[in-house]
This record gives sequence, C-alpha cells and structure tokens, in this order.
Amino acid sequence: MPKISQKGISMPESPIRKLVPFAEKAKSKGHHVYHLNIGQPDIKTPHGALQAVKDANIEVLEYSHSAGFESYRNKLAKYYQGHSLDVNADDIIITTGGSEALLFALGSTLDPHDEIIIPEPFYANYNGFSTSNGVNIVPVMSTIDNGFALPAISEFEKLITPKTKAILICNPGNPTGYLYSEQEMKQLTELVVKHDLFLIADEVYREFAYDGYKHISVMSIPELANNAIMIDSVSKRYSMCGARIGCIVSKNKDLMKAAMKFAQARLSPPTFAQIASEAALDTPQSYFDEVITEYKERRDVFINALQQIEGVQVTVPHGAFYCVAKFPVKNADDFAKWLLEEYNLNGETVMIAPAAGFYSTPGVGMNEARMAYVLKKDDLIKSAEILKEALKAYQQVEK
Amino acid sequence: MPKISQKGISMPESPIRKLVPFAEKAKSKGHHVYHLNIGQPDIKTPHGALQAVKDANIEVLEYSHSAGFESYRNKLAKYYQGHSLDVNADDIIITTGGSEALLFALGSTLDPHDEIIIPEPFYANYNGFSTSNGVNIVPVMSTIDNGFALPAISEFEKLITPKTKAILICNPGNPTGYLYSEQEMKQLTELVVKHDLFLIADEVYREFAYDGYKHISVMSIPELANNAIMIDSVSKRYSMCGARIGCIVSKNKDLMKAAMKFAQARLSPPTFAQIASEAALDTPQSYFDEVITEYKERRDVFINALQQIEGVQVTVPHGAFYCVAKFPVKNADDFAKWLLEEYNLNGETVMIAPAAGFYSTPGVGMNEARMAYVLKKDDLIKSAEILKEALKAYQQVEK
Ligand SMILES: Cc1ncc(COP(=O)(O)O)c(C=O)c1O
Ligand SMILES: Cc1ncc(COP(=O)(O)O)c(C=O)c1O
Repeated sequence: MPKISQKGISMPESPIRKLVPFAEKAKSKGHHVYHLNIGQPDIKTPHGALQAVKDANIEVLEYSHSAGFESYRNKLAKYYQGHSLDVNADDIIITTGGSEALLFALGSTLDPHDEIIIPEPFYANYNGFSTSNGVNIVPVMSTIDNGFALPAISEFEKLITPKTKAILICNPGNPTGYLYSEQEMKQLTELVVKHDLFLIADEVYREFAYDGYKHISVMSIPELANNAIMIDSVSKRYSMCGARIGCIVSKNKDLMKAAMKFAQARLSPPTFAQIASEAALDTPQSYFDEVITEYKERRDVFINALQQIEGVQVTVPHGAFYCVAKFPVKNADDFAKWLLEEYNLNGETVMIAPAAGFYSTPGVGMNEARMAYVLKKDDLIKSAEILKEALKAYQQVEK
Repeated sequence: MPKISQKGISMPESPIRKLVPFAEKAKSKGHHVYHLNIGQPDIKTPHGALQAVKDANIEVLEYSHSAGFESYRNKLAKYYQGHSLDVNADDIIITTGGSEALLFALGSTLDPHDEIIIPEPFYANYNGFSTSNGVNIVPVMSTIDNGFALPAISEFEKLITPKTKAILICNPGNPTGYLYSEQEMKQLTELVVKHDLFLIADEVYREFAYDGYKHISVMSIPELANNAIMIDSVSKRYSMCGARIGCIVSKNKDLMKAAMKFAQARLSPPTFAQIASEAALDTPQSYFDEVITEYKERRDVFINALQQIEGVQVTVPHGAFYCVAKFPVKNADDFAKWLLEEYNLNGETVMIAPAAGFYSTPGVGMNEARMAYVLKKDDLIKSAEILKEALKAYQQVEK
C-alpha cells in the first residue's frame, strides 16, 4: 500500500468544518442552527453580474489569458485608481479566488523552510497554504485586550531571521475585524523596507470599513512599491464567493513575472466567473452603501447584545464582518460542541467557530470564538439571546 | 529590494507561449498564422451545458462544498460507472480544472525532494506543478521510433529509489497521442504494486480514442485500488476549457483525505462552471460520435499529409489530438521561430510547438515538434502544405 506524503498528513483541517458533524446532529434532532461560524454572506449578488453571464454569447468556452481577460484587468485597474491606488492593468493577475492569489504570493516569495510572520489570530487557511508550500508561519501575538491592534514593531523585529521573507497581514482582519491605522501601516512600511521583506496584504474585505474609518491599502503607500503584494477577491465585495475570482497585485516586476509562471502552469482563471466579475465592476455605489449600512447595523446590534452578556469580552470591530469574543468558559471548543449536541433554546441553537484554530501558538485563545455577523438582524439578536442563556446553563456543566 | 523565491525563479515558462511574441510579429505583418501549437479545440461546447448556466436561478452566488456539488459528484460517478469504472461519488473531488487535480495529487503523494517518474516527452506543465511542489521529475525516455510506446519496465526499475513515490502517465498522451495498451497497463500495475507507488493517470483525453482502440483507465484495474489516482477534466471532453472544472479520483481513503484538506483550504471549485459541467453529463452520445469522427478525419488528413513530406517522421496516434513529428532540421526551435519571423506562403504561415520543452532530458527532441490537429480539415491541409514548402526553403537557411 503506497503512503501519502508527510505534507498530506500535516495539512491542517479547517477549524470551522470540524464542528459540521455536530451541527448535522443538531439539525437531525429538528433544532434550528444559527450559523455564526462561516463568512458566507446572505447579501444578494449584484443583478448585473449575474445577468452578464446569462447574456454572454458563448459558442466555445475557451481558456482565457492566464492573467485573465485584458478587458477585465483594465477595468479593474480603473476601479483601484478610483480608490486612489497606484495600480495598472500590468500590475494585476486574475486568480481563482483570493485563495489562489495567496498560493501564488507564497510560492513566489518563499522557498521550503522559509519563514513568514503573521499576526495571530489569523485566517485559518493561511496554515493550509503554508503547509502546501512547505513554508513556516512565525506568529506574532495580537490580543483581544486592545481589540487585536498591530503588535509592537519590536515584537516583529525579535522574530526576523535570515529565513524571514515576508510579513502577511489581513486588513481588515478575519477573524478579528481589526482595521489597521495609518500609523500602524507606516510602522509596517518602515519595518519591511528596512529588512527587505515582502508585505503581503490580504485585503479581501477592503470595502468593509465602518464608522468613517478609512481602509489603507498597501498599494496606496509609495514607499512600498517594491515590497507590497495585495491580495483581493470578488467573493465578499459582491457576495459572489462561488465565482472564484480574485487577484494578486504588485508593482514589483520580478514578483509579477514569477507569479505569472504559476498562473501559466494552471492555464487560466474561470471564464464565466470573469464575465460576472467584470460586469460587477459596474455595480452602483448605492449597492455598497446599502450593504455597508446593513453590515454596520448588524454589527451594532450583535456586538451590543454580546457586550451585555455577563462575562463576555468583545470590542467593536471597524472592518470586515467578524468579531472574536472571549467567553466565560474554560474551553470554547467544548462549549461550541455542547451548544450543538446538548443545548437548545426553544428548539434553536448557534454554531460558533472556536478561536484556537485561528491561533498558531498552541493553547492560546482557548476561551475565545469567532463569530460572523452575516445573518439578518433578528437572527443575530436571537443568536445573542441563545448565547446568553446557554452560558448560564453551561456554568453548571463546567462545574 | 526584497528578493523573490528560488522557486519563483526556477518555475519553467511554458514552451508554447515562448513563441507568442514571434506569432504577434507575423500577424502584425498581415500574415495569417495557423495555430498548430495549442490544444484549444474549435469544437462547439454542448448547448445544454451553456444553457444550464443561463437558466440557473441564482440570487447569492455561494461557495459550493469543497469537494464540489453532491449532485454533480453523484452524476459523474454514474458516468464513470457507465464506462465500467469502479467509481463512487465518495471517490471524487471536483477541482478547478485537471490542473488543480494534478497539484492536489502531487501535494498528497510527494514531499519536497521526493521523486516522480514520468515517461517523456510529457505535458509541459508537469514541470511547473512539480517545481511549485518542490518535487523532482525523473524522466524515462519514450521515443518516436516506436510511436512513444511505454518504455521497458526495466528502465523504470533502474530509476526507482527510496525517494520515488509515484509514476505519472498521460493516457492518451499529450504531446504524443499515444494510447497505452492493455499489456502496458498490466506491466505498470505490477510495477507500482510491487514497489508500493502511486500510479497517477492523467486521463483528460480519455474520450479521444480512435480506430477501435479502447482507452484503459487506471480505475478499471481492480489491483490498483490502493495505488491509482485518476485525473480528469471537462476541458477537452466537452470543449469547455474555460470552465475550469476537473476532478481527482481515487479509492485510496488516505489519499482522498489528504486531497480533501487541500480542497478545503481553497474553499470550493467555481459554481457557474459546475452547473455547466453537471449539465454537460447529459450530452447525447451523438455529440461525441460527431466529435470523434471529426478528430479522426482531421488526424487522417493531417498525419497523411505530414507523412508525405520528405524527411518528416511521424506515426499515427490513436488518442488525444496531438502528434509529435521529427523534422529534417537541426533545431525545431529555430525552425519554429523562422516560420513566424521569416517565412510565409502566400501570406500564411504556421505556429508549431518545439518538442524539446516536453522533454526533461536536455538536448533531446531538438528536431521534433508537437502539433495539435484542432483546426478544420482544410486548414490542416493548408498547414501541411506550408510546412512542406517551408522545409524546402529552410534547407537553404540551415546551410
Ligand atoms: C481573510 C481571507 N482571505 C482570503 C479568503 C479567500 O477567499 P476567496 O478565495 O473566496 O477569494 C477568505 C475567505 O473567507 C478570507 O476570509
Ligand atoms: C495532459 C493534460 N493534462 C492536464 C491538462 C489541464 O487541463 P485543465 O486544467 O484545463 O483541465 C491539459 C491541458 O491541456 C493537458 O493537456
């Protein structure tokens, strides 16, 4: 019997999907489960994007250019320029989701056993992409006590070795919802320029900034021209996760040349989805205004309700649509399972994502969980109510 | 200035795209270029597949299951069963093209510096996928003199080391068009079972077998249950390369578990394209009968014309839609460039893919080229005519 690779064994499983069998059990008992655990928005995809695919007159569904349709890249460059980012069509390679852009970015900047520094907690699939590239994540801790602000630059400095090739940030953050300030971006800029590192910024939630806070892209910082790699995606912006379209953006020519070779090997990004994504660029500002207003209201309702639960610690996130909360429990993983297996309030329960899976350091974040506020306000209010009652009941269980 | 990875530097460029600037030059001179160099069929995509996408009623374009739609996997399993392959829905993970299936297969079976044996000449992107996984290709030579039949098993045996984890075959072959016989598949089966190796079979051209020859899938060989990994794709079968849908198939549970972790990290395959691919399974047999007849006629016309050119060596391929021919030139790369830069017959010329890029051993195949017979018959006849006249003229050039 042939043996699979060590890599195949050590590929991490998604911390979110681990609980799926427990959720299925809850559902089989007839319980309704509020899914706070995933970032699949319920927002409608812009009509124009879907209609463009219906209207497309295709006879032979051909490969596109490996970097994506030229027309799409041109239009996308204009979109970025409209957001004051210095991006031309040549600086863009269209990818199969932000996921593939991340794979290309890691492959183009790190060799096996090289190191990439990432503030934790971080998007759990960074683990998978790193394992599949054979590179090592070096985490730098951010904490719930200051809302997951950028760790002190001295903490990064301590971790830099000759093997360090890049720093990866997620801005705004999944799972934290944290939006880096101008001051923080300036500190990061100085750091990567000083140490000749790439700064990979996962900006797939760039459009989701609230309370007048401005998202600061790595592509808006002239000093980063050689260092910055932006990861973007249509998944969340237009609520079209199933399209599988993203992009990798950089003004570093060597980097783009390398990324292009990865892109050529896999031939092309999906054609239907590029048609939808190109059309999505015509989405009127009113769509975003509505979506942002909706998310902001959801956040306000949900965070407010969470903050009123005794023993729960959570700060107001200014971006994306996630929050990490600390619960008055010993182990959020056990609590999450219990919510699905044992608990219900009038036949309803909630599914949360234990935060330990978003930390790289073992044993950290054990009593924290990530929740996405992608449900309707009423459902979020009910979810918080369920959590409140459940926590009371759980005190007896944990005793 | 940060430096890109060694991997990014050593990622190979596509041997086909290298000549694109030369083709553009030819076109800018007003010359018509017959593209024998790429495997993009001109065959129409089945209407039902395209219509299914138009008819889909999508409001939120969501992520699908990481393994693909359950309905699609069930239907696809039935399709394989209809071809006498022992495949259940659980044995299938839907991927973003056969390309991604190859990446998952390599990642799940080989660690960095491990070795995979591949008969050469082989599909050039195997180089890219290997480089991006940090694994080494060990080529075993097949030759034009016997139509690129399977090399002797003793040649494989010589190359097997403790680092050898898998053998990769392409059946029918790109670039060779060779279809492995039952006897050859039996030999390979014994070999991989004896040495506990995975046998990865790239069967993306499985439907394209001519002259009554039968394609023998690795999934039809019971002894291979633990060893076989099949790579498949809708790209060529339904002429829908731009969909970007393929799959990895295996009955080895450990392998599928590992592949699933790679699949989860990238979230899901494209949704529109899965709708089209699922509908494509209803394509009537008459479509394939027509397509196969068309390709067979093209092959007959083209190979026949090539064989009549003095000094050209080519055998009749029984599968796929490629052939490798040996030309009476010193260097097919120079010849290919000259065809585009210097030559034209009544304002027309041809673009061929020098075969050296399909060999891993340096200096081999220097006077060979791959050609795809994906053009209309008249165009193939004209292309062969151009090659014939060009070869006469080129004799003077090479002197
Ligand atoms: C932070 C972050 N980056 C990247 C992705 C990948 O998204 P996609 O591949 O759909 O673009 C996600 C998806 O949830 C994400 O949350
Ligand atoms: C032999 C072979 N394998 C795999 C592929 C990848 O095809 P796709 O990713 O479009 O399924 C190709 C495409 O030309 C091919 O020729």
